[in-house]
Amino acid sequence: MAGVEVGHATIISDLPRHAAPPTRVRTGVTVLFPRGRKDARPVYAGFFSLNGNGEFTGTHWIEESGFLNGPVGLTNTLSVGTVHSALVEWWLERRGSGPDADWTLPAVAETWDGYLNDIAGRHVRGEHVRSAIDAAAGGPVTEGSVGGGTGMVAYEFKAGIGTSSRRLGERDGGYTVGVLVQANHGRREQLRIAGVPVGREITEGAFKSREAGSVVVLVATDAPLLPGQLKRLARRGALGIARGGSTSGNGSGDLMLAFSTGNPAAGVGSEVVQLVDLPNHRLDPLFGACVEATEEAVVNALVAARTMEGVDGHRVVGLPHDLLRSALEHYRRLVVDPT
Amino acid sequence: MAGVEVGHATIISDLPRHAAPPTRVRTGVTVLFPRGRKDARPVYAGFFSLNGNGEFTGTHWIEESGFLNGPVGLTNTLSVGTVHSALVEWWLERRGSGPDADWTLPAVAETWDGYLNDIAGRHVRGEHVRSAIDAAAGGPVTEGSVGGGTGMVAYEFKAGIGTSSRRLGERDGGYTVGVLVQANHGRREQLRIAGVPVGREITEGAFKSREAGSVVVLVATDAPLLPGQLKRLARRGALGIARGGSTSGNGSGDLMLAFSTGNPAAGVGSEVVQLVDLPNHRLDPLFGACVEATEEAVVNALVAARTMEGVDGHRVVGLPHDLLRSALEHYRRLVVDPT
Amino acid sequence: MAGVEVGHATIISDLPRHAAPPTRVRTGVTVLFPRGRKDARPVYAGFFSLNGNGEFTGTHWIEESGFLNGPVGLTNTLSVGTVHSALVEWWLERRGSGPDADWTLPAVAETWDGYLNDIAGRHVRGEHVRSAIDAAAGGPVTEGSVGGGTGMVAYEFKAGIGTSSRRLGERDGGYTVGVLVQANHGRREQLRIAGVPVGREITEGAFKSREAGSVVVLVATDAPLLPGQLKRLARRGALGIARGGSTSGNGSGDLMLAFSTGNPAAGVGSEVVQLVDLPNHRLDPLFGACVEATEEAVVNALVAARTMEGVDGHRVVGLPHDLLRSALEHYRRLVVDPT
Amino acid sequence: MAGVEVGHATIISDLPRHAAPPTRVRTGVTVLFPRGRKDARPVYAGFFSLNGNGEFTGTHWIEESGFLNGPVGLTNTLSVGTVHSALVEWWLERRGSGPDADWTLPAVAETWDGYLNDIAGRHVRGEHVRSAIDAAAGGPVTEGSVGGGTGMVAYEFKAGIGTSSRRLGERDGGYTVGVLVQANHGRREQLRIAGVPVGREITEGAFKSREAGSVVVLVATDAPLLPGQLKRLARRGALGIARGGSTSGNGSGDLMLAFSTGNPAAGVGSEVVQLVDLPNHRLDPLFGACVEATEEAVVNALVAARTMEGVDGHRVVGLPHDLLRSALEHYRRLVVDPT
Repeated sequence: MAGVEVGHATIISDLPRHAAPPTRVRTGVTVLFPRGRKDARPVYAGFFSLNGNGEFTGTHWIEESGFLNGPVGLTNTLSVGTVHSALVEWWLERRGSGPDADWTLPAVAETWDGYLNDIAGRHVRGEHVRSAIDAAAGGPVTEGSVGGGTGMVAYEFKAGIGTSSRRLGERDGGYTVGVLVQANHGRREQLRIAGVPVGREITEGAFKSREAGSVVVLVATDAPLLPGQLKRLARRGALGIARGGSTSGNGSGDLMLAFSTGNPAAGVGSEVVQLVDLPNHRLDPLFGACVEATEEAVVNALVAARTMEGVDGHRVVGLPHDLLRSALEHYRRLVVDPT
Repeated sequence: MAGVEVGHATIISDLPRHAAPPTRVRTGVTVLFPRGRKDARPVYAGFFSLNGNGEFTGTHWIEESGFLNGPVGLTNTLSVGTVHSALVEWWLERRGSGPDADWTLPAVAETWDGYLNDIAGRHVRGEHVRSAIDAAAGGPVTEGSVGGGTGMVAYEFKAGIGTSSRRLGERDGGYTVGVLVQANHGRREQLRIAGVPVGREITEGAFKSREAGSVVVLVATDAPLLPGQLKRLARRGALGIARGGSTSGNGSGDLMLAFSTGNPAAGVGSEVVQLVDLPNHRLDPLFGACVEATEEAVVNALVAARTMEGVDGHRVVGLPHDLLRSALEHYRRLVVDPT
Repeated sequence: MAGVEVGHATIISDLPRHAAPPTRVRTGVTVLFPRGRKDARPVYAGFFSLNGNGEFTGTHWIEESGFLNGPVGLTNTLSVGTVHSALVEWWLERRGSGPDADWTLPAVAETWDGYLNDIAGRHVRGEHVRSAIDAAAGGPVTEGSVGGGTGMVAYEFKAGIGTSSRRLGERDGGYTVGVLVQANHGRREQLRIAGVPVGREITEGAFKSREAGSVVVLVATDAPLLPGQLKRLARRGALGIARGGSTSGNGSGDLMLAFSTGNPAAGVGSEVVQLVDLPNHRLDPLFGACVEATEEAVVNALVAARTMEGVDGHRVVGLPHDLLRSALEHYRRLVVDPT
Repeated sequence: MAGVEVGHATIISDLPRHAAPPTRVRTGVTVLFPRGRKDARPVYAGFFSLNGNGEFTGTHWIEESGFLNGPVGLTNTLSVGTVHSALVEWWLERRGSGPDADWTLPAVAETWDGYLNDIAGRHVRGEHVRSAIDAAAGGPVTEGSVGGGTGMVAYEFKAGIGTSSRRLGERDGGYTVGVLVQANHGRREQLRIAGVPVGREITEGAFKSREAGSVVVLVATDAPLLPGQLKRLARRGALGIARGGSTSGNGSGDLMLAFSTGNPAAGVGSEVVQLVDLPNHRLDPLFGACVEATEEAVVNALVAARTMEGVDGHRVVGLPHDLLRSALEHYRRLVVDPT
């Protein structure tokens, strides 16, 4: 997505502990700027909670105003406060301090990485957030075990950050829909890729998780949509997650935010503002694109992440590419390019 | 689902018109009683709108009170008022008239059958609603082109009413989840069955619908759930719809209601009431069951319905069973019983 | 509000019954056209349920799309179906029948008039709805016991339809906020007017209602607001109701809809549409205007309605103007013009 | 409210700054334990956002599960992250660290105290949170400029923490409703006390705020209510705020949470749990109590707080008790005990 900038800070280290196995740190933080780091103009946004066993701060104002002001931070469950504070500090420096500074209600979301990471050690620090901010850039996003996704696990495979996008045909407006997920959800037996029951075919390394974990879905589009339309788009993220096999368990924090980089003048200044909007009856291609890109972003997180060892001797395997190919071939869903 | 009673009134006729092709009537009404026709005690209920391009009356009170009082009626879009009035009349007769009668806020949902049915003729009458009420019975529900589903179309195949259920193992409480859908949604190319891209394999009779149509999902369970938990269950209906391939287009009225036949004393009398509740962390098997049963109920609607001709020479093919088998076999998803 | 048109059909008659006291019919229907009867273009709209013990059909689509398509009908609880059907029929005639006609999801709201009216007799007919449509006109709206408000009661005084509006100063944009209520809510002891405990001062005719009744609030503005902003405006209707003393009891259907006549091009055609929007931080004057106008509209309904006798010998007194003046004077809230 | 424990940490100091006026610190943190500090069992809870220009973390899970797990923290806008982190740390210590610890999604709400407080200095530290936790106790709660309310301002008078409660008669169940507000909302001219336009009568010290500020409302009851019923109760907090004169401006974070200390077994253990519930049609006395107690809690915050000087020479007057008495007397709302 042109304009969107993403930065990761990945924290991987083995810290010695006195008379104990070393602590494994497998965590991090990812920061996404809807219009890039240099452009503080808000974006229209809409939120959806498929299953609210998670945190996503700042959503009361998104729901109320229709705007996302500032970046979105992704991290582990117990570091929400740290990332929240760091984003406030960063904001204050940019805006000047004192009563004339704007108030701020940062957007910070999380999933739980405690199976691999010493989450109780709360190893994410303010400097990591700064590092992620400084690293924010456009272009392709590194996927897998990076940033907020470093210690994450999906369908009992190593997972983390995944992205995908679709560009509509010119007849449909030529808009782009991009999705970034922090994937930490699903039980092995549920996993479907391209409709194939991959989770039942590849049982290697399954550790019989009873909990469904969580997934955060961020959807970006340059189509000029209003907040209510973006809420509708966010809801399609849930349909994409469903295609992967998850049934969104009680323990899931499956939280979805969609925003539009259109209408840059919205939310700026005090005059009546000129907007453009794509009519509701032209949303279907965007809805379809969002479902597909969300489904694929999870697969990309799985494909990019490699086997990782963490705390308590826990080991989570990466999705074996060869076995995945075999499974897709068996079910005749792998189209081999004949050239 | 033990206790639930369902009745259909199916209206199929070709009415001659002066100097014009005959009007084809392909519509009807279905009535579902959560505790059976004779038991007026309310049930706890929860509602979810995946995409609100449809009507489902009575939901403000369901959302507010947590209760569904009385039956749910399913019909075509332009007959909502008729069914609403007929349910009010039926209620008044049972309860006595006058100021001591209970007020009533009937629950009536709809999908659009105007592709096959002379919907503008508004052929559903009060007597059809009575007929559906009188026909209400427990046990297996007739599927396909019956009742409210008579003229409905899904994935450009003839569809209508479909049902499915799952019974949990004893370890999970032995509860049942039953789903009834009025399926009228989806474009052909989207259809997936058991993960297989059936809609791309079977192109017969596709009429290139641009609209996604609608689907109403009713979820019943005997697990003792509170209203908020039922809202969560209703939301899983959306995940089941997603598995079938729909991306819930702008034109869809994808509305879902879940109710529990547990806690029969709730909502009755004015004393503090004793309830039982299944804890949240035991909901996952119910969530999974709801996703699966919803996915399957749509398939059952497709499999049960036969090719139908309707207004304006429109003809909608039934899903060809042989081609479906072939497609499932090709993708190795058909398990043939060797005995 | 320029552009808005409102029509009433008031049904008052005493029908003889064999060997029984005559049935008193005290009911009706009110129809409001956001852009007038001749202009079918949709308006942006937002809905809020303060307490959902009532019906307001069509809101799933309002919530989903942000648009109100067509008029709003107000009637008694048991006539929702009748009015719904009549609006569908009216729509079909205008639009032509057949598959090329637009679907329709009418907006019909209600309150309960069974204390005075033979509500179980269901005396509202389709022709009454037509009559209200035909009577729709701009300009001042008749208040009190008219249209849908004919048999309504608020704070144990005769009430019904009330309206009020505020025009903002030019500095705030010069916009207008108009409110129409169908007031049928509140217990006598709760009533406050201009902060004065009028309900405790005027006990005449109190009949010790235990139920709180219901109130429907329709808010119109020409300020160019988006759907989410209109939802915020609708919520301020609740604050206006609160000022009157109601605590919105369990039995209340306190349902509020706000719409904007701005942006007439929205929802029309399939091209990207140009919109204007008033920024969020300029909404406060509109919020204040909505609270005040809602508070006042209820007072106007009370002041306009006259004592009425109905079924079962029930008699509801009109708010005595002299006693109201006395109460306001006693609490020094009546400013007497010295001229 | 029996069982509920509240603790404040109040931070007031004047810190010298090099070559600049001293920094005025006027802030703090308040922690509320629904069942007391020693009892970690969750409570049923329901949330309502009247206007979401504020933060209240943890609400996705409250909405999803119906439970509030753990305490609620109240602080200033820029210290949400600090309080969030400190509550996580406190939780970890109590629960043990490592993967077997429960996850935690703390509930932290805020209002903006930057008019009096050096909010950008972010002077709330983890030890203040600990101090508030340690101070938590039952019984009367100190009101006014304490804890999270230290630097808060309402209706351009000094405000902060306020509480109030109502006990229902035995016929209504003898339940208690207690309300705690962090009051930081409203413009002077809007203020009404007991229906009297106090804000227009007492213009002393008005500083013509354009912003409406924010108010957090916490409602506790021992009535055995389910989550959906508590959501309804929370919504009545908005009606109490409305009675004080606020119209809930765009800048307001008016966020309300209600919880019940009934059903201590709910949310504990994995067996089907026995609950009790008060029927919906008995909620009206609780609704009325909540409206009244919320209205009064704001008044109590105003009456308790004293004039305060803060940053930038800002000075906010306490509501002058003598002028308040005069205004109430003038409008004949002060009942003087003749003894």
